[in-house]
Amino acid sequence: MAIQNFVAYNPVRLHFGEGVVQTLGETIKQYGKHVLLLYGKGSVKKYGYYDEVTGILKNAGLQITEFGGIQPNPLVDDVRRAIALGKEKKVDVILALGGGSVIDSAKIVSVGLVHDIDPWQFMLWQAFPEQSVPLVTVLTLAATGTEMNAAAVLQNTETGKKVGFVHPELFPKDSFLDPAYTVTVPKDYTAYGIADLIAHALEAFFGKGEPSVIDRITVDIIKDAMEQAPLLLNDLKNTAWRANIMLDATLALNGLTNYGRSSGDWGVHALGHELSLLYGMPHGATLSIVYPAWLKLQAGRIPKRIQKLGDLLFGLTDIETVIQKLEVFFKSIDCPVRLADAGIDESKKEEILHQMNKNQDSGMVYLLNDADRKQIVEYM
Amino acid sequence: MAIQNFVAYNPVRLHFGEGVVQTLGETIKQYGKHVLLLYGKGSVKKYGYYDEVTGILKNAGLQITEFGGIQPNPLVDDVRRAIALGKEKKVDVILALGGGSVIDSAKIVSVGLVHDIDPWQFMLWQAFPEQSVPLVTVLTLAATGTEMNAAAVLQNTETGKKVGFVHPELFPKDSFLDPAYTVTVPKDYTAYGIADLIAHALEAFFGKGEPSVIDRITVDIIKDAMEQAPLLLNDLKNTAWRANIMLDATLALNGLTNYGRSSGDWGVHALGHELSLLYGMPHGATLSIVYPAWLKLQAGRIPKRIQKLGDLLFGLTDIETVIQKLEVFFKSIDCPVRLADAGIDESKKEEILHQMNKNQDSGMVYLLNDADRKQIVEYM
Repeated sequence: MAIQNFVAYNPVRLHFGEGVVQTLGETIKQYGKHVLLLYGKGSVKKYGYYDEVTGILKNAGLQITEFGGIQPNPLVDDVRRAIALGKEKKVDVILALGGGSVIDSAKIVSVGLVHDIDPWQFMLWQAFPEQSVPLVTVLTLAATGTEMNAAAVLQNTETGKKVGFVHPELFPKDSFLDPAYTVTVPKDYTAYGIADLIAHALEAFFGKGEPSVIDRITVDIIKDAMEQAPLLLNDLKNTAWRANIMLDATLALNGLTNYGRSSGDWGVHALGHELSLLYGMPHGATLSIVYPAWLKLQAGRIPKRIQKLGDLLFGLTDIETVIQKLEVFFKSIDCPVRLADAGIDESKKEEILHQMNKNQDSGMVYLLNDADRKQIVEYM
Repeated sequence: MAIQNFVAYNPVRLHFGEGVVQTLGETIKQYGKHVLLLYGKGSVKKYGYYDEVTGILKNAGLQITEFGGIQPNPLVDDVRRAIALGKEKKVDVILALGGGSVIDSAKIVSVGLVHDIDPWQFMLWQAFPEQSVPLVTVLTLAATGTEMNAAAVLQNTETGKKVGFVHPELFPKDSFLDPAYTVTVPKDYTAYGIADLIAHALEAFFGKGEPSVIDRITVDIIKDAMEQAPLLLNDLKNTAWRANIMLDATLALNGLTNYGRSSGDWGVHALGHELSLLYGMPHGATLSIVYPAWLKLQAGRIPKRIQKLGDLLFGLTDIETVIQKLEVFFKSIDCPVRLADAGIDESKKEEILHQMNKNQDSGMVYLLNDADRKQIVEYM
């Protein structure tokens, strides 16, 4: 497949390192005087990030309108309310303080504020934004990569359906990545974030296109995360390890791993979402279960590709060993690799398969049919 | 040193792959109707790129003003003339068709067109642009990375001095990287381009900051170039190998390798420039001579850093062997590793050292004094 034609574009300005949040005021002032501050359900207040950020905004003479309480699975209803509030208050700029759910919500708010369109229409790809209110982010969880890309995922309050939208207007203008803002993430969610970023790199690796330098770089991100993970998980307050994982997570989904590819695969993500939907499992914990099973299914179909992964990642090409080593890694960071590890009984497999088949979860490159999904669920 | 604080920002839209130039017209039309077309000394006409590009512009209904004849070491005088022409003709957008010298010239033209300031003042960092005319590039030589960065190097016609300027206004809006536009680059200049891109990655690796994932990525760009080089040099018309090297060259100097670093070193480049100045040596050919000598000087001073390079690049940490393997590679692609290989006699070493000491060429991280430069020249 070699290099596939591609367009690369990413205008996000990344401010990375300890203390960068101190310069937030100057950055935001470029975009206006009145800030709509979005945040989640309390941890930013509990750990002092809210106080520090609002203090910086006030010192910079900025006016603040707040919208807190965004859920971990962000709801379009909250986005609608935030848009109404922002329109009423005539805000100039949005600041998202939080993880993926807050930033994803803020992205849709940023386009919703300047269009008279229900935001769910964007999510259904039925309407496309022509402009946006400038969005600035302060990241508090390394995982999704949303801080440096143009994608957002929201859930519909009534249907429970989770859908994603990608559009250049969703790029944040500036993202502040201060590792000190992630030191309070608990051990389990730190590990799930690591599983998530590794899965993002794998989705790219199994995408369409095999650009040689980007294959290497994609695996470098995985390799680095696997090396940093035990250091960080044994020393959660260490900002140096936090910084390394934070950078890995951003690189895993900021477009770089798709240079030379025309798409990622994303089949494992689709399957994993069903586990979250059915049992409320954290996203990263679904991926550490589904990826090994997906690889077992693909072992006989794309052996060379999996051997390439094994060679770059572990210096070995025996496929069974490659998958086993991935599983050993996930277990070592307390991420589940079987349903049983997540406390989900064998007897649920039928229900899971039913849900996956109902949505015809497939991926974009190595397509899955009903029989494939059955095999994957059996492996889980 | 771990990760150093950094700001990453690169808004260039990269259009990569065979045939992408076909969409050039639509892209340029976004920016206006009247194009200032800059190109070099004839090879784009000889090989048909000029005809194809001007045909595409005309089909798109665009008006063209031409400025050809830009030199391989681009001169500020040409830039001044191009600015005068562009102002007179009231152009809306600039198209640079060529390699580093044409694109670098076009960057300064793009800011010169909208300021009443002699362009050399920008080059001396005595004036800073506030805006620019949109710049689009079509790259015909993989080497300098200028297609996706905000730097330009120009030479002063009177003094012969070569200086660089870096400013966000110098980013091209769009860069078209079609590997088919590089297949006519002769074998020697293809190899010098590879030496140049490897040296760019090394300058970053020996910069300030040791971000673990970026160290891996930086070295993997080198590793990929070393692997692709013999494939390409034995099959110069092969667009797949051309594409791989083209992508390596862009990644080596588009900012990525400086994530987590506060600067590169650039000492080797400074020393290499003196050889170009004294003997007209091609830039890449100076770097393959100076880098091994610089590494020999640094072997006793920064052994761990060089061992890290060796470990990531060759899986070995004996410093002498690491340097030797780099030299073997450069020789294998017919790049000189000693002055003698470039036909420069031992007796010139005094003159070379004098020139280097006169300019106090040093680099930014592992600073060099007169005695260091003497040692380096002895190794060359």
